[in-house]
Amino acid sequence: MAQVIADRRDIDFVLHEQMKAEELSRHRKFSEFNKKTVDMIVTEARNLAIKEMLPTQKIGDEEGCRFENGKVAVPECFHRIYKLFREGEWNAMTEPPEWGGQGMPTIAAMAASDYFNGSNHAFMIYPGLTLGAGNLIRIFGTEKQKTLFLRKMYTGEWGGTMLLTEPQAGSDVGALTTSAVKNDDGTYSITGNKIFISGGENDLTENIIHPVLARIQGAPPGTRGISLFLVPKVWVNDDGSLGEFNDVVCTGIEEKMGIHGNATCSLTLGGKGKCRGTLLGQENKGMSAMFHMMNEARLLVGMQGFSCASASYMNAVNYARTRIQGKNVLMQMSDPNAPSVPIIEHPDVRRQLLTMKAYVEGMRSLIYYVALCTDKAKVSDNEEEKAKYKGFVEVLTPIAKGYVTDRAFDVCNYGLQVYGGYGYIRDFPQEQLLRDCRITMIYEGANGIQAMDLLGRKLRMRNAMNDLLEEGGKTIAAAKEISGLKDFAPRVEKAAEKLSRVGAHLRKTVMSFKALNAFAYAYPFMEVCGDLAMTWMLLWRAVTAAPKLEKLVGATDFWERREEIEKNKNAAFYEGQMKSAEFFIHNILPITMGKMDVILETHSGAIDITDVSFGG
Amino acid sequence: MAQVIADRRDIDFVLHEQMKAEELSRHRKFSEFNKKTVDMIVTEARNLAIKEMLPTQKIGDEEGCRFENGKVAVPECFHRIYKLFREGEWNAMTEPPEWGGQGMPTIAAMAASDYFNGSNHAFMIYPGLTLGAGNLIRIFGTEKQKTLFLRKMYTGEWGGTMLLTEPQAGSDVGALTTSAVKNDDGTYSITGNKIFISGGENDLTENIIHPVLARIQGAPPGTRGISLFLVPKVWVNDDGSLGEFNDVVCTGIEEKMGIHGNATCSLTLGGKGKCRGTLLGQENKGMSAMFHMMNEARLLVGMQGFSCASASYMNAVNYARTRIQGKNVLMQMSDPNAPSVPIIEHPDVRRQLLTMKAYVEGMRSLIYYVALCTDKAKVSDNEEEKAKYKGFVEVLTPIAKGYVTDRAFDVCNYGLQVYGGYGYIRDFPQEQLLRDCRITMIYEGANGIQAMDLLGRKLRMRNAMNDLLEEGGKTIAAAKEISGLKDFAPRVEKAAEKLSRVGAHLRKTVMSFKALNAFAYAYPFMEVCGDLAMTWMLLWRAVTAAPKLEKLVGATDFWERREEIEKNKNAAFYEGQMKSAEFFIHNILPITMGKMDVILETHSGAIDITDVSFGG
Repeated sequence: MAQVIADRRDIDFVLHEQMKAEELSRHRKFSEFNKKTVDMIVTEARNLAIKEMLPTQKIGDEEGCRFENGKVAVPECFHRIYKLFREGEWNAMTEPPEWGGQGMPTIAAMAASDYFNGSNHAFMIYPGLTLGAGNLIRIFGTEKQKTLFLRKMYTGEWGGTMLLTEPQAGSDVGALTTSAVKNDDGTYSITGNKIFISGGENDLTENIIHPVLARIQGAPPGTRGISLFLVPKVWVNDDGSLGEFNDVVCTGIEEKMGIHGNATCSLTLGGKGKCRGTLLGQENKGMSAMFHMMNEARLLVGMQGFSCASASYMNAVNYARTRIQGKNVLMQMSDPNAPSVPIIEHPDVRRQLLTMKAYVEGMRSLIYYVALCTDKAKVSDNEEEKAKYKGFVEVLTPIAKGYVTDRAFDVCNYGLQVYGGYGYIRDFPQEQLLRDCRITMIYEGANGIQAMDLLGRKLRMRNAMNDLLEEGGKTIAAAKEISGLKDFAPRVEKAAEKLSRVGAHLRKTVMSFKALNAFAYAYPFMEVCGDLAMTWMLLWRAVTAAPKLEKLVGATDFWERREEIEKNKNAAFYEGQMKSAEFFIHNILPITMGKMDVILETHSGAIDITDVSFGG
Repeated sequence: MAQVIADRRDIDFVLHEQMKAEELSRHRKFSEFNKKTVDMIVTEARNLAIKEMLPTQKIGDEEGCRFENGKVAVPECFHRIYKLFREGEWNAMTEPPEWGGQGMPTIAAMAASDYFNGSNHAFMIYPGLTLGAGNLIRIFGTEKQKTLFLRKMYTGEWGGTMLLTEPQAGSDVGALTTSAVKNDDGTYSITGNKIFISGGENDLTENIIHPVLARIQGAPPGTRGISLFLVPKVWVNDDGSLGEFNDVVCTGIEEKMGIHGNATCSLTLGGKGKCRGTLLGQENKGMSAMFHMMNEARLLVGMQGFSCASASYMNAVNYARTRIQGKNVLMQMSDPNAPSVPIIEHPDVRRQLLTMKAYVEGMRSLIYYVALCTDKAKVSDNEEEKAKYKGFVEVLTPIAKGYVTDRAFDVCNYGLQVYGGYGYIRDFPQEQLLRDCRITMIYEGANGIQAMDLLGRKLRMRNAMNDLLEEGGKTIAAAKEISGLKDFAPRVEKAAEKLSRVGAHLRKTVMSFKALNAFAYAYPFMEVCGDLAMTWMLLWRAVTAAPKLEKLVGATDFWERREEIEKNKNAAFYEGQMKSAEFFIHNILPITMGKMDVILETHSGAIDITDVSFGG
């Protein structure tokens, strides 16, 4: 059974029918990216992903990375796909062409990433981090820094990383102790130990450029005294030629639950010899540089987790169609010798598949929508509109990272369960997808940090919050006009109103003497916001699909309709959109209502309990 | 930091204060097992588990099993602990002493298993299956079969397995094709292929006794034509001496997500040579023999999953107390240079820990309670009471397996997240616990099968259902009399009433033309039943703890109470009981109410959707 990773029909639907990505090509910046071009991009990405990258997924997991004498070898087969990836010019899809990027809209790049990440998440972390490091240089670098590094990074000739975490400074970046001392020539000598550095050392490229967070001697404590430096593995001379090696030593790699093909390195900087770097951006402004890049990186992590879920769902639904096991529960009642059937006929398997489908579709739309907002914020010439879309990106990003990776893990978990015992063994991709997906809930800001961000920072952005509710309201209004949707549109409306109340309540509580209680509900708040985001996206899909379905299917009788739908692939797809929305609204949203009751009560139990009463 | 696996204080509380296990010793059968003896058993189990078995957990995971030329080697270090386990006479704790068992109450054995499984789940599968196979022989075997096999299995000299699954027959046991032909000497020649056989071949014991499900030539198709056979790896002569090897060939072992120390074997029976077995029980009654053993085995799987969760929680709470990271959110508001604090001070970490704590405690009580009901059904001389407790075991077992292993996995998932990036790497036990736990949702009847059992069979046992609600009602009534509980007792009452309605509704729907819809809600029904079972158990705990807490703590002022509690370990434990119940009722139960709304609506979406609309 050929694996498909992601549903092309669904990607096309989101790009063209739901989000109308082509409208971006009206703007000069994206004028080349009409529908035909975007389709070609997706087709090319899909081919590379399925034909070349997917076969390396399992091999990379089994082979893992090898560490020897400070050197790290990635799985052998990664070299070939890295070459192909570079040849396809996929390294910097959205970045400016003058530096070697492709200047694509983010939403088109997301569609390509949908395939790439689903085919080999561990591999994709290498080019993903290179891109992030490159973007830091593009935005905060001097002309010289850009000239020396940027093109080589955007074309994948050199790699890039991010040296942030230290043993005592994970979520609490401000606690880092890596230090920088200014030299006479304007460079800085860096000393410190960094851990959990994805791709910190590897043999894919001859040079690796490390942005490093460090504290200049004498700088203030905490996050206000952190600066950002560029430390190349091999020094780059002013003429672009390579100089001496910097003293950046990989002291080991982690054995992990998943993403075995990606090297998670411990690095010692300036432990014995000289480790030189140049300041990137301003002194003591390292954290704001980091935050600037955060949204982009977090959306990408959301995509990583999601793409594991999408692949797991595709596998599960195809498996369920071919796996013969057990009898149809109704037929069995009348005939004990009824033949065995594909497991997709079993009600509980259908429930699992439809749950997965609804989340996968909702998550895809959400991620693509954040990408679209990024694009619109870039091209809009109306300041108000620009601000609106920027606000949307700000508010939705912690959801697209925190909520999406949580649900992606759940979907992978269902995807394993549909396979039964086969899901637990390594012959099938489901258990690896679950293991690989799990990291996305942790890195680039653990999901608890996303929830704190949403409650502590984003909830204060009242305009953006109101604009979002208004935007969602338009979808509800449209749904009310469509027969087949008007029955459940009011449920969504009621839930949205309740979410408003929940937001107002938490905004008030955070500023009160009950602030700690409010923070104990940051995570549940992220969950209900995510549920509502899913509801919106699925309803929007249904609003888009409904009139098209009615055009394709004439019958009103249940069984006649069914027959027509079975014969027409497009009709089946649109019916699937109606069913996902309906399922989510009838099966998940009532639970969300309960979750909102919980938040509105803001019970103080988790705060009040004495530490010692936790036992242990 | 020393690992503790399970909270001894909590185990003692459940055994003695909540369940009053000592009352069992009033019956002659358990007269030896007074409180002192049970405590000694738990202490011994704990010592063996923590000192000897726990250190092999990670080694077993890394080393795994080796397969070569049909032979399987378990991790080297398992040999020593197997010897110690046998020496401690832990193999058959509840079985009759005349066959080498210890004759313990099941609840006492569960307390010991709590430690054993938490210390090395993969290892414990070997003695666990041996016991299950032995019990089949004890119940269905002839005197001769018992004499030949039973003592050697109950003392762990020989191993045992269960040969059930075939490639096309997992959840659908009736589809199996292994065949049996009767020989002139009364034995049967068995031919077939079995997969997913835990411990099907291993080097722990010189002989392995395989109960095999097979179809006698000419027997009816489906489950009605399945018989059970005993096939020893090495034939056992009538005088007990070992004869020739049977043709049971291990053709390979699975590479799995977890439980690497346990060999999951594919076995070919009678592929080339002779494979002889003797009938166990009656012809064509193999399935009912299996079902007879099922409850016991499923409760044990619930314990396996639960014990991973318990260990993960213990690790997480101890880690959270020592891991310094980030500042207290309130202190930071007034002082940006506030010192970093242990992460247990962060509201979101507390929420995670209290969620874990509540589930772990609820699950422990539920499993021990099912064990207690098993014991009471055994010793009661009142037929009505006997039937009542048997009914409780029947109804609660699918919950103690299906719901408990699902929630155990969730708890392990939280337990990983509390560690942040460290949770994802193999230096810490959390990721292994998650991987090891995952299998419990699949084997011994995938959790979807448990849900079908609960809805399709157990819900029909009206007496048992009503008795259970009545029993829970007693706890609610007791709670209403206790200040500090009477505020939330009515919430539980309301939820229990709603569950009654949900049960009645599904009972009706299952018998209607909407039966398929009802089956699509079998799983959600198991979930709400489980939530209510947790609520009951936690409220029962609180009812037990409340008066004791009041005796120990005199102050009524919040801060004074807190101070008293911090100084008194027992008071802290009892406060923890109040807090778990309160947390669950305020934070989970409102969500359960939403889930019940969903079931009451019994929306037909998952059934109606056309197969092709699932995409893929």
